[in-house]
Amino acid sequence: MAEKKAAQEKETEKAPSRDELEKSFKEYSVAEFFKKNRQMLGYSGKIRSLTTLVHEFVTNSLDSCEDAKILPEIRVEISQLPDEHYRLVVEDNGTGIPKKNVGQALGKLLAGTKFSNRAQKRGQQGIGAAYATLFAQITTGKPTKVKTGLGDGRVYECQVSVDVKSNEPSITDEKEYAGKFKGLRIEAEYAEVGYNRSEYGSYEYLRRTALANPHAQLSLVEPDNQITVFPRASKDIPNKPKNVQPHPLGITTSDLMDMAQVSSARKISSFLVSDFTRVSADKVKELQSLMPAVDLERAPKALAWSEAEELVKNFQKVKWIAPETDALIPIGEDQLEKSLKNLLEPEKLKVVERKPRVFRGGIPFSVEVAIAYGGKSGQHVGDARKGELTRFANRVPLLFDAGNCAITEAFKSLDLNRYDLKEFETMPVTILVNFVSVYVPYTGAGKLAISAEEEVVSEIKFALMEAARDISQYLHGLAKAEEQERRRLIFFKYIKEIAQALEDVTGRKASVLEPKLKKIAEERTAFLEAQEEGDPDAEKELEDIEEQFEEEVKNDG
Amino acid sequence: MAEKKAAQEKETEKAPSRDELEKSFKEYSVAEFFKKNRQMLGYSGKIRSLTTLVHEFVTNSLDSCEDAKILPEIRVEISQLPDEHYRLVVEDNGTGIPKKNVGQALGKLLAGTKFSNRAQKRGQQGIGAAYATLFAQITTGKPTKVKTGLGDGRVYECQVSVDVKSNEPSITDEKEYAGKFKGLRIEAEYAEVGYNRSEYGSYEYLRRTALANPHAQLSLVEPDNQITVFPRASKDIPNKPKNVQPHPLGITTSDLMDMAQVSSARKISSFLVSDFTRVSADKVKELQSLMPAVDLERAPKALAWSEAEELVKNFQKVKWIAPETDALIPIGEDQLEKSLKNLLEPEKLKVVERKPRVFRGGIPFSVEVAIAYGGKSGQHVGDARKGELTRFANRVPLLFDAGNCAITEAFKSLDLNRYDLKEFETMPVTILVNFVSVYVPYTGAGKLAISAEEEVVSEIKFALMEAARDISQYLHGLAKAEEQERRRLIFFKYIKEIAQALEDVTGRKASVLEPKLKKIAEERTAFLEAQEEGDPDAEKELEDIEEQFEEEVKNDG
Repeated sequence: MAEKKAAQEKETEKAPSRDELEKSFKEYSVAEFFKKNRQMLGYSGKIRSLTTLVHEFVTNSLDSCEDAKILPEIRVEISQLPDEHYRLVVEDNGTGIPKKNVGQALGKLLAGTKFSNRAQKRGQQGIGAAYATLFAQITTGKPTKVKTGLGDGRVYECQVSVDVKSNEPSITDEKEYAGKFKGLRIEAEYAEVGYNRSEYGSYEYLRRTALANPHAQLSLVEPDNQITVFPRASKDIPNKPKNVQPHPLGITTSDLMDMAQVSSARKISSFLVSDFTRVSADKVKELQSLMPAVDLERAPKALAWSEAEELVKNFQKVKWIAPETDALIPIGEDQLEKSLKNLLEPEKLKVVERKPRVFRGGIPFSVEVAIAYGGKSGQHVGDARKGELTRFANRVPLLFDAGNCAITEAFKSLDLNRYDLKEFETMPVTILVNFVSVYVPYTGAGKLAISAEEEVVSEIKFALMEAARDISQYLHGLAKAEEQERRRLIFFKYIKEIAQALEDVTGRKASVLEPKLKKIAEERTAFLEAQEEGDPDAEKELEDIEEQFEEEVKNDG
Repeated sequence: MAEKKAAQEKETEKAPSRDELEKSFKEYSVAEFFKKNRQMLGYSGKIRSLTTLVHEFVTNSLDSCEDAKILPEIRVEISQLPDEHYRLVVEDNGTGIPKKNVGQALGKLLAGTKFSNRAQKRGQQGIGAAYATLFAQITTGKPTKVKTGLGDGRVYECQVSVDVKSNEPSITDEKEYAGKFKGLRIEAEYAEVGYNRSEYGSYEYLRRTALANPHAQLSLVEPDNQITVFPRASKDIPNKPKNVQPHPLGITTSDLMDMAQVSSARKISSFLVSDFTRVSADKVKELQSLMPAVDLERAPKALAWSEAEELVKNFQKVKWIAPETDALIPIGEDQLEKSLKNLLEPEKLKVVERKPRVFRGGIPFSVEVAIAYGGKSGQHVGDARKGELTRFANRVPLLFDAGNCAITEAFKSLDLNRYDLKEFETMPVTILVNFVSVYVPYTGAGKLAISAEEEVVSEIKFALMEAARDISQYLHGLAKAEEQERRRLIFFKYIKEIAQALEDVTGRKASVLEPKLKKIAEERTAFLEAQEEGDPDAEKELEDIEEQFEEEVKNDG
């Protein structure tokens, strides 16, 4: 003990020598890094960590089904084990993973099918599922059980873990047998996670996933064995995500350099035509005339950084056709309507589908908004109801970091009073906003919030205004009906007494007077109602506000 | 074009075959990953990105100097180049980097000297400086220029970049020559960064770094060539960070497994004694008796996960001596006083140094708080002043993500009214809180905020209360003096008129009455002042609140 102390003291005094400095350098694997920095991948807090796990598996399942045009059936089972351990099972009917790739997909960080894709998929990082494997390991020491079938009559099972030092998969307990199972089944045990039905929990995550994915059938078994099925509302499978070529206005110098390095084109000029959208030979000529000193007939690999920079600058000077928007896959008006009717059974529903727009000059996106009122709408807090703003990016629920999100910002900029949503906090209202783009500008770490780019916020605000106007009309009508009912009740309540009083004064029988008075009352309220009907002023006012906002946006732009 | 379209259509229709699935799997380097996910490392927003760069280099410089007991002199130069590019130069007088390690340190992510250390250092990830190199590359395509000398008469220069595909360093333009230069000089060019003097900018970062590091001399050249020197306030170099052994109550099963794997001890029993603090042979016996089924005389490498889990559970049942706290390196009361007097020239200053405590049972930490009032204290907004809460972890300023931080939470829980800080938002007040620990429980990605663990928040609140009590007394005194002055002025203002009025009524000369009235007025105010002096009630009340809070914390714990 004393010796140890002395050694420590000695260490404290000396300045390090070259040799010591040299020896102190070490290298680490990406698995070691994320083992220490789990919060970067969404693993902070028990409830949220479990939601992150569910999210990783469910998005992979949905992506896999979409790729193969399969109607997804996904089953999530969460059970509590002793010592606050949890078992999570996720099973889907997707394409499955070939035996050869199970290690890469689930036992090696930064490997997968999606990393460099330019298609609208939910997952993008090649890290989620493998990190889930690592998370099981570092919290319970247990490997993850995998069962997979491609639908060719053979089923493969194994247990997979990540070798932390090398970031290589380790596979044990392999089994292969004949069977009909097609899809993927993951079973793993985790600690340092937790389950509840709060707005950050796995239940809410699945409920919202169901809202935005009406073609999917999701079921959840909760730790208390309660089974919830979020039924499929539609059999229309969304389009398969397409790879899209970038628009010249949507890329950075660094992107351009990367693309030039791997292009199979023989010249910079043909590289621009073949690897970008909306670039024609004529446009290349125009570019060449803007930068005569740069020879665009050289090989793309010879493109220097400064030349790429100049190209990007000159892209801004050329007039381009806007990018194609057919790679965008919104949920769609019909589907959203089916979905919300199916799950929320609202009294009133309005869905707004906006036309695709472009941000940063070259990145297409679109926004869809639905507002549901009444029925099961709103967040259920005990018996009470709270208005809820549910945010989505490419149909994936964004549960965390609401404060930093373009969707929240657009919503906050609405004048709720004008839309009869002043009491939003206590109203049975669900607002759904889905941001659709091949490239979602996420803020911060994880994929939790959409960066508040001006074009994006404006577009979301427009969609919200349009939907809210309709809801406002409905709520206005409700309020009016209530008011009329109230007036009628007041009239009728006193008619008996008035009739009696009149009998005393006039000598006429109350029983004769009463029906006469009732008739007068009815005529009077009907007249008032007729006068108020339509109330076109209120709607006109909201339209005016929208126009005004449109004007402002135009002037800014 | 048409052909391209047709190929895309075709791609859309088909479900992927086994062969296609297999081929779609790819692997990526950690450099590629972070190239796409820069926001995970603090690179979001132009101003913040530049601050992050300054932060990475300055913390490395401070760590390097501390290791070698050198008084740091760090010079930061930021200049603006055409096209919104910026050049950043950071030069220090630290140990320098051996030629052999320059590539690892600056051109390879996840390599460095700090990753697995258990010492209180600023940097911990082995990623910061190398990512800065990558950031220069992906925004301007330029390598980073390095100059380094170990003080042995030779200077080494080179240009370094990261090969993104392999995450390996690429070194060019090497030069070696005789020279006296000792330390490290980094020069790089970045785009997508910005500079201003806001509270998130590089200037503020350095100002706060100076506050918490009085032994360092920092200078900054801003883009407009303005030079600011934050002068050294003290020549006392902080202790060199020591590696500390973990306390049995501060580790997880996963940590224990990792340690067992690499231990040089021959038995689990001796591993526990040699690799942990506060574990004696007797304690091992006690543990053995709690888990007789597990043979602790086996090799540490043979420790199974379930056994490690049982050990961690039994650690909770044994009574341990609290961990040593001598590895904690606070700024210190004297140093903080010197620093704040030097930089803020306050009218009133209170520094509170709390004794080390322990969170999660086994992780030592301590909190120091300083409150400065008047002089240059507070945030300067034009000519106005704003109260500021400056947060630090191990002397590193935390500029971002204030909302999620234990320090902010503790501050918000104070009743500012009671501490005469009701007008905090517009007062010339600087509050400094430094959280000191070998293991800082950061929340979220980056190192921006401290997790609001209960013990941590309570301890910070205590320190704040204690310091605020002193400031409150001072402010109270100020307010009283003002009130007395006001009373006096009112008295004297009317004495002339009262004297005149009395002359009319009584017939006595106003010139005789006036001095008499003045005397009465003076006696009266003096009497009032004497009555109020000391005002022990107010101080007693604040002490009572602290005691009450202490009681609450105890009862919770």
